[in-house]
Amino acid sequence: MSATPGTHMKDEIEQQPAVFADLLAAREQFAEVARIVADRRPRFALLAARGSSDHAALYAKYLIEVLLQLPVGLTSPSTTTLYGAQPDLTDVLLVTVSQSGGSPDLIAVTESGRARGALTVAVTNTTDSPLASVAELSLNIRAGAEQAVAATKTYSATLLALYLLVDAVRGGDGAQARALPDLAASALEGARDSVEEAVQRYRFAGRLVTTGRGYSLATAHEAALKLAETSYLSARSYSGADLLHGPVAAIDAETAVLAACSAGLGGESTREVVEAVHQRGADVCAIGSAAAKAPAAHRILLPECAEEVAPVLEILPAQQLALGLALARGIDPDNPRGLQKVTKTT
Amino acid sequence: MSATPGTHMKDEIEQQPAVFADLLAAREQFAEVARIVADRRPRFALLAARGSSDHAALYAKYLIEVLLQLPVGLTSPSTTTLYGAQPDLTDVLLVTVSQSGGSPDLIAVTESGRARGALTVAVTNTTDSPLASVAELSLNIRAGAEQAVAATKTYSATLLALYLLVDAVRGGDGAQARALPDLAASALEGARDSVEEAVQRYRFAGRLVTTGRGYSLATAHEAALKLAETSYLSARSYSGADLLHGPVAAIDAETAVLAACSAGLGGESTREVVEAVHQRGADVCAIGSAAAKAPAAHRILLPECAEEVAPVLEILPAQQLALGLALARGIDPDNPRGLQKVTKTT
Repeated sequence: MSATPGTHMKDEIEQQPAVFADLLAAREQFAEVARIVADRRPRFALLAARGSSDHAALYAKYLIEVLLQLPVGLTSPSTTTLYGAQPDLTDVLLVTVSQSGGSPDLIAVTESGRARGALTVAVTNTTDSPLASVAELSLNIRAGAEQAVAATKTYSATLLALYLLVDAVRGGDGAQARALPDLAASALEGARDSVEEAVQRYRFAGRLVTTGRGYSLATAHEAALKLAETSYLSARSYSGADLLHGPVAAIDAETAVLAACSAGLGGESTREVVEAVHQRGADVCAIGSAAAKAPAAHRILLPECAEEVAPVLEILPAQQLALGLALARGIDPDNPRGLQKVTKTT
Repeated sequence: MSATPGTHMKDEIEQQPAVFADLLAAREQFAEVARIVADRRPRFALLAARGSSDHAALYAKYLIEVLLQLPVGLTSPSTTTLYGAQPDLTDVLLVTVSQSGGSPDLIAVTESGRARGALTVAVTNTTDSPLASVAELSLNIRAGAEQAVAATKTYSATLLALYLLVDAVRGGDGAQARALPDLAASALEGARDSVEEAVQRYRFAGRLVTTGRGYSLATAHEAALKLAETSYLSARSYSGADLLHGPVAAIDAETAVLAACSAGLGGESTREVVEAVHQRGADVCAIGSAAAKAPAAHRILLPECAEEVAPVLEILPAQQLALGLALARGIDPDNPRGLQKVTKTT
């Protein structure tokens, strides 16, 4: 553990532009895996993950459905590990996502899926992980060792890796992602002051809701998890559509709402959600390249990029906010209560 | 709106045993739809829903994967409505779930899915709904008009309908569900006192987490939604596995944890999660037929039934608790702030 609280988390947040640059430079691994995936012509895709990686998998679910036009689902490891389900997975692409590559349940899902005909791809942060070795194909997110317990650079690098994989499968060359290292650097620098203001503003927030739609739903879920596990704030995440369906009743002037508002269809449709919670008196913090258009009490602006890669940038100020809130509330985010880096769920 | 706060919600909670009996008596609709589904031999299933129905869809995801051995995913309506994805859905069973049968996004998903080759089944509470009319096949959950804004009987009836459908597809005769009307009546009656104690105990809870695994993960999600939309308590839900992966850091003696603990594999594996949060000082309220075995501060016992239908019973005391907490906190759950019965998300 680090001596100064939050040192590891802070360092790893700052490393992200360089991590993206390195991953983009090593793009041939995606081309190779993508060629095999495209040749097999999968008809369905399944994704399996836990925690932050599960939010990255949710992002990939949208990518696969929209960009590859494949039906796709997030599979629950427990159907395999608890209930022993053995579905026929011929024609299925099964992507398992795990930073450590050591989660026993994901190893079981991958082994079992491969035995039942799935084309298995493991996305991990270590080349020689057990997960990578049981999968037919594997990709390395190349984020380097993560010391902080709260995933930051491994989350964003996983998003980028999944984007590069999906884009390569459809024959793309990652053009939309190329500017991300520079955009990430300017996002981290440019958001610093507005994040610091947000730390002061939400330090005593008792009720915090995060929301987003489409690709950016992953941002909402990951931001809520990051806040809950580092600053222990009671943060809940909802898709914009689901929020209006029920939980909006619990939103009032006591509620802070973090909304992912990037340029594009998801961000545009989030704007009506933001308007609804704003009218209920909520204190809205809009994050993204289209945050200026949202009726918000506070805004964290980000540089514009293609909508499908915006989650890679949106999470950066959310990580800074989680770090800042933890420190302001006297908590060391590098040493959260009761958390270990690898969860051994079965 | 009703004169006495919560009258509609209370009445509809009480109607559930009769609703289940009626649905079981009308079982031939499931046999007919199941015959067509089985004949088409789908290779993949997708489910689409919003709000409480989405939790019922999550339950069905486990049923389909474990009992039908089919890979399955919850599809996000926004990939169709926002992003215009048009995947080939040949060999796909697409089940859309909506109490009202009027959600525009689910109608769009069903129409679009049917045009792309999916076998579409709509599960609604009205025979002549727009959703039922665009789907090739439809099932009526027969719960009768729901006056309360918070779904209670339509949620549990949807669970039962989805179970009866899945069981019929695998050639079952609904035997595991036959006792549910009687068990539900005794659950509602038997839980009354312990629910009332829970209302007193959690009235001032500032931080409430719900959890469950396997089939009962749906219970955790629905209980959290019910509490949030009626009593405005800040309730978050996590799968047991995900909870240990990160959010456990935010759990302490200030946290109330509602855990679904029914007899069976899911409940057994939830016990280790309950032990972890109990050790962190959380105030655990265990709900289910195996609640006696959990290290809990409070227990709401339910009659035992097959694990795969336990969520139909588990939600009953959670509904009673949401109603009781709303009334204790001076809120009319029949008239929540800012909620309408049908959400017109696009």
